[in-house]
Amino acid sequence: MKPIRLGMIGGGNDAFIGGVHRIASRIDGRFQLVAGALSSTAEKSKASGAALGLAEDRCYGDFTEMAKREARLKDGVEAVAIVTPNHVHYPAAREFLKRGIHVICDKPLTSTLVDAKKLVAAAEKSDALFVLTHNYTGYPMVRQAREMVRQGDLGRLRVVQVEYPQDWLTDPVEADGSKQAEWRTDPERSGAGGCVGDIGTHAYNLARFVTGLQLESLAADLSTFVEGRRLDDNVHVMLRFDGGARGMLWSSQVAPGNENGLRLRVYGDKGGLEWAQEDPNYLWFTPFGEPKRLLTRNGAGATAANQSASRIPGGHPEGYLEGFANIYNEAADLIVAARDGKVPDHLLPTVQDGLEGVAFIDACVRSSKRDAAWVRL
Amino acid sequence: MKPIRLGMIGGGNDAFIGGVHRIASRIDGRFQLVAGALSSTAEKSKASGAALGLAEDRCYGDFTEMAKREARLKDGVEAVAIVTPNHVHYPAAREFLKRGIHVICDKPLTSTLVDAKKLVAAAEKSDALFVLTHNYTGYPMVRQAREMVRQGDLGRLRVVQVEYPQDWLTDPVEADGSKQAEWRTDPERSGAGGCVGDIGTHAYNLARFVTGLQLESLAADLSTFVEGRRLDDNVHVMLRFDGGARGMLWSSQVAPGNENGLRLRVYGDKGGLEWAQEDPNYLWFTPFGEPKRLLTRNGAGATAANQSASRIPGGHPEGYLEGFANIYNEAADLIVAARDGKVPDHLLPTVQDGLEGVAFIDACVRSSKRDAAWVRL
Amino acid sequence: MKPIRLGMIGGGNDAFIGGVHRIASRIDGRFQLVAGALSSTAEKSKASGAALGLAEDRCYGDFTEMAKREARLKDGVEAVAIVTPNHVHYPAAREFLKRGIHVICDKPLTSTLVDAKKLVAAAEKSDALFVLTHNYTGYPMVRQAREMVRQGDLGRLRVVQVEYPQDWLTDPVEADGSKQAEWRTDPERSGAGGCVGDIGTHAYNLARFVTGLQLESLAADLSTFVEGRRLDDNVHVMLRFDGGARGMLWSSQVAPGNENGLRLRVYGDKGGLEWAQEDPNYLWFTPFGEPKRLLTRNGAGATAANQSASRIPGGHPEGYLEGFANIYNEAADLIVAARDGKVPDHLLPTVQDGLEGVAFIDACVRSSKRDAAWVRL
Amino acid sequence: MKPIRLGMIGGGNDAFIGGVHRIASRIDGRFQLVAGALSSTAEKSKASGAALGLAEDRCYGDFTEMAKREARLKDGVEAVAIVTPNHVHYPAAREFLKRGIHVICDKPLTSTLVDAKKLVAAAEKSDALFVLTHNYTGYPMVRQAREMVRQGDLGRLRVVQVEYPQDWLTDPVEADGSKQAEWRTDPERSGAGGCVGDIGTHAYNLARFVTGLQLESLAADLSTFVEGRRLDDNVHVMLRFDGGARGMLWSSQVAPGNENGLRLRVYGDKGGLEWAQEDPNYLWFTPFGEPKRLLTRNGAGATAANQSASRIPGGHPEGYLEGFANIYNEAADLIVAARDGKVPDHLLPTVQDGLEGVAFIDACVRSSKRDAAWVRL
Repeated sequence: MKPIRLGMIGGGNDAFIGGVHRIASRIDGRFQLVAGALSSTAEKSKASGAALGLAEDRCYGDFTEMAKREARLKDGVEAVAIVTPNHVHYPAAREFLKRGIHVICDKPLTSTLVDAKKLVAAAEKSDALFVLTHNYTGYPMVRQAREMVRQGDLGRLRVVQVEYPQDWLTDPVEADGSKQAEWRTDPERSGAGGCVGDIGTHAYNLARFVTGLQLESLAADLSTFVEGRRLDDNVHVMLRFDGGARGMLWSSQVAPGNENGLRLRVYGDKGGLEWAQEDPNYLWFTPFGEPKRLLTRNGAGATAANQSASRIPGGHPEGYLEGFANIYNEAADLIVAARDGKVPDHLLPTVQDGLEGVAFIDACVRSSKRDAAWVRL
Repeated sequence: MKPIRLGMIGGGNDAFIGGVHRIASRIDGRFQLVAGALSSTAEKSKASGAALGLAEDRCYGDFTEMAKREARLKDGVEAVAIVTPNHVHYPAAREFLKRGIHVICDKPLTSTLVDAKKLVAAAEKSDALFVLTHNYTGYPMVRQAREMVRQGDLGRLRVVQVEYPQDWLTDPVEADGSKQAEWRTDPERSGAGGCVGDIGTHAYNLARFVTGLQLESLAADLSTFVEGRRLDDNVHVMLRFDGGARGMLWSSQVAPGNENGLRLRVYGDKGGLEWAQEDPNYLWFTPFGEPKRLLTRNGAGATAANQSASRIPGGHPEGYLEGFANIYNEAADLIVAARDGKVPDHLLPTVQDGLEGVAFIDACVRSSKRDAAWVRL
Repeated sequence: MKPIRLGMIGGGNDAFIGGVHRIASRIDGRFQLVAGALSSTAEKSKASGAALGLAEDRCYGDFTEMAKREARLKDGVEAVAIVTPNHVHYPAAREFLKRGIHVICDKPLTSTLVDAKKLVAAAEKSDALFVLTHNYTGYPMVRQAREMVRQGDLGRLRVVQVEYPQDWLTDPVEADGSKQAEWRTDPERSGAGGCVGDIGTHAYNLARFVTGLQLESLAADLSTFVEGRRLDDNVHVMLRFDGGARGMLWSSQVAPGNENGLRLRVYGDKGGLEWAQEDPNYLWFTPFGEPKRLLTRNGAGATAANQSASRIPGGHPEGYLEGFANIYNEAADLIVAARDGKVPDHLLPTVQDGLEGVAFIDACVRSSKRDAAWVRL
Repeated sequence: MKPIRLGMIGGGNDAFIGGVHRIASRIDGRFQLVAGALSSTAEKSKASGAALGLAEDRCYGDFTEMAKREARLKDGVEAVAIVTPNHVHYPAAREFLKRGIHVICDKPLTSTLVDAKKLVAAAEKSDALFVLTHNYTGYPMVRQAREMVRQGDLGRLRVVQVEYPQDWLTDPVEADGSKQAEWRTDPERSGAGGCVGDIGTHAYNLARFVTGLQLESLAADLSTFVEGRRLDDNVHVMLRFDGGARGMLWSSQVAPGNENGLRLRVYGDKGGLEWAQEDPNYLWFTPFGEPKRLLTRNGAGATAANQSASRIPGGHPEGYLEGFANIYNEAADLIVAARDGKVPDHLLPTVQDGLEGVAFIDACVRSSKRDAAWVRL
């Protein structure tokens, strides 16, 4: 099977997430990076591309130019990964979608709700696929958690606690030359949410994915602790779900001692589940009244969803990159299937999930401005 | 040194917390239980007392009778432990306080805010001491955490996350003969708060004790998940502290897989701390930008507060009962000092802390009734 | 029920284990310390005794004098706790046993195998009880582990891994004024085993207690890493049990980062168990082919042995002192039963267990001298 | 930079480790699989190759035929990965080495000591590189551990405890159709060591890599617990290192509850280290007398060795495949450097390490046959 020809928008030399997408696309050998608008100028793009082994004439300074030319090439890109700051997601995605080129886009979907809705429309109009890399949903134990909720192992859900603390913005590093911090604290590039957009949306999406619960309303208290920072760096939200379950979401970028502490706990009337991203090969499950059980990736007690998202036996830890690669791997399945016009059932985050995420950010910001009043979704 | 003569109100055969108080009072050998109104009838009280080696004529069916008689005995009780359901705390404490007998009272202080204020007045009018057993403050690592916050190891505090999940009320056991569940879910005996009164108040007190922060306002969303239950069994609260720190409190009695998951995390601009009651001999400390450190009870890195609350070397775990005994041990110090009219500085929870706790419960209930509106404290 | 009148041999001001025994004897309120030969002179003994509230005339400078006088008193001690350095265990125990006074003795039984055999003879000749405080066997989860092995949850046992690392002798603190270190590294007072006698014997006893396996032979490699130290400070042993199971034992006092890392793992053809003393409220159990289960003290899945050794509900940690108190509590049961001439079944370590422990030390020392040759037990 | 052309020997459809090598070779995009003798017949090899996108004429039924033809092709393989059962390592490696094709070979080096020595000779005679995939040395925290030992953070080493328990051979699955179990328990294909060869050698290599200590002698007690099994399934070894350090090694394939529990602990006179393969992003370090520190992959406290072996920020776990990919990535560095005749300093396991591993297996088997007598290395 020939690898799928992949392009990349963003992801030049300094970037973090671009490199992650490239590794993720390589792990299962189903994509080959052949073109890119990796940086904002043709020159930089060529430099970054050269380091990645791209042909010079496939390195573009502009995603529109790239979309136009690649669409005409016989062996042009079949799909692109968009890994730019948030405000570029929509305009870039639009150019490829309208030319029938599949889009794999980093989260959050866009920097504004308006753009998000436009992107939904663009995706719906297009024959091409749109996949959002809410990569934490690719972890095998997260897949198992979702499966267990759906098959009723927890009973009727009551309480959802989700959190994502980090500490890298404890000091004002955006004023100190950190490129990563700069755009993430800049409303022009990130949108109205800072921490809530960058990682709160991951936490929210994870809770949604695992529980299947629809958020009915939220009350959010966003804070900015670092002086001079333009966006929130700590997020407290109370959640009310359709059907009566309640929850809390905490995300923070100023919590020293936390690297990427994404953690989900779900409780129903029959049992409880707990998962933490930093130790992703474990899932704790307690059937009420019985001892807690430590489920492992591809180990004893693994469900089909766990096994099929695993590459190697239990006890040999898979990590973030393999979870991310599961998104790419399934995207490859869809892309191949789409060649025959058939898109199978799948678990990939869609443009609708992306819209939900942006709506969540928007609702948090609105609620917080109104002193944490309840906002319906 | 002769042991202090102790009486007990409540704590008859079926009770949980009475037994805890008795062990806690024995561990350091400074108290001797000599009298009690252990149950609601003289007969039951005598039966319970006999099992504890009490003289029959020191077993009372009524705390007022006990207070009156013991106050007149030459070797009458010097202090009493009140371990009844909440609504009895005030009337019982009053009888002893007004006769100059020290009171060691379980939490929450009372079942109503009105009673709490009366009890404060009674305590202030009395020469006797009043100690509230917010026992989690007795753990050595909690003492160290408080000391570290005060000496600035965390810098200026920003975020406080505290939680106390349990699972024992996942099913309607109060309808099934559980005495413990019965009174804790009964507003007549517990007050207007269920889970929030029983354990939310512990979580709140712990956060207060360690951080020293004063709560400015809160927004609470109380839920009752078990059908027919008369009080809340899950508690979500957003917290705003004086000085700008923010926090969240979650307590639940319907979270399967949680026994007594009291856990506190505190973050400042210089560092973070984390402590969990179920593994109480550890305290995690991260100075921002450095590796996380695992501090241990009476181990390397132990502060004076940690050492002085410890009995044995690090690595031999002390537990809940020793933490509780630290409250009794310090109460003994105070009682002995009070004989000479001097009450030294101490860390014991006071009647004021008790009032704060009841005010917290009251504010949560009021906020929740108003759809989680902010309520000032 | 009147408390049992207890005396103490050793345990003066500086001692560690004496204080532990006293707390353990108080926790369940069944003993009252009334006499002691706490130190090696009458004067020091009286000083230590005064601090403990002992009457002056019940404070002795000599255990023989104490045994003689207490045996004649109408309210003389019914039992004594012997908490001296090892070489005193035998002579002290002998004096009380021959006068029908029960003995609760710290481990190891004696400092020499010769003494151990004499003590066995003395105990067998006496009507009094002899209890050895291999206190780790008092932990509820250890009791459950033993019960699970006996009821076949692990199947036929194959592998036993036990270890007890500490780090407090990493430096030559015995040359620096540490009393604890001084006698423990002195062959005159400790016997021929240093680390192996002090903690290796605990590890061995724990493995014996839980597995029920009889040791067939061992090969030991003892080391002394700290220059000038007179006894071993690191112990490596390979174990062969009757019936074919094999194991390893490691104990060390020079392993930085270990406080009291006693840990046992047992594997059979149907399952595996793991327990660690520093987190004693947990027991890991894996039925082969199923997920690992986290059993807790008095929690879901607790066996009768676990429950009956627990005082409080799961999730409120009990610790080292409660485990130790379980030994005292059962000793009290036996003492009370012995009044009527009936000694019930029990789990307490006996003088035979003590002899086994000393034989284990002796075998390790002999094996090590012969370059770790196999020595039969 | 063009990817290095890679061939594979073994790794057909059913294999485990072949898939691991393929992913590891892809992660950093520096290799491209272009040929293979994946199975023992041309037909099967072509079927496996087709699934991997190999051209039909580059799929061979025989490694000798492959070596001959590829050596003549202009774009023939530059390197091969050998992932067959152990007994094939030597003959296969020989064919490629003698034709100047680099070899990346799975461990243990060979199934016999005789073969191992021949392979060393072949590698030394060849201009091509030989890399052994002792992949656990590729983990970033293992690299940091080694660096810390070398820079003296632990002081003079005293004690080394290493273990590698698994449970997958608890039952006689080799008699039940498990291909993986079949060859690993077959002396013809695995050599004289079962568990000791399969995973004991990993444990030994890890200890060697991190500590730098040379083994002086060992005493090994190998067991076979499963009836009918032809090789050992449990391994107990006492270790004596040059310079006086001592250690223990335990590996087992019959320890229920263990997936891949490789774990190393190293203690010196200044500090201790602990690392566990199943949680590979953590390294515990205790400077003696200070609190334990939790070092993380690419987190605070990461050394250069840790950072350079990491792809993504701390808190996003990397796993087994990334550790394995580090071996491939460095092999790529060497292969590229070798084009110019320069081989830089590196940390990759060499043919000499492979010989040491086989000598270790051989010594264990010999010692065990002589009732665990000490055998010098």
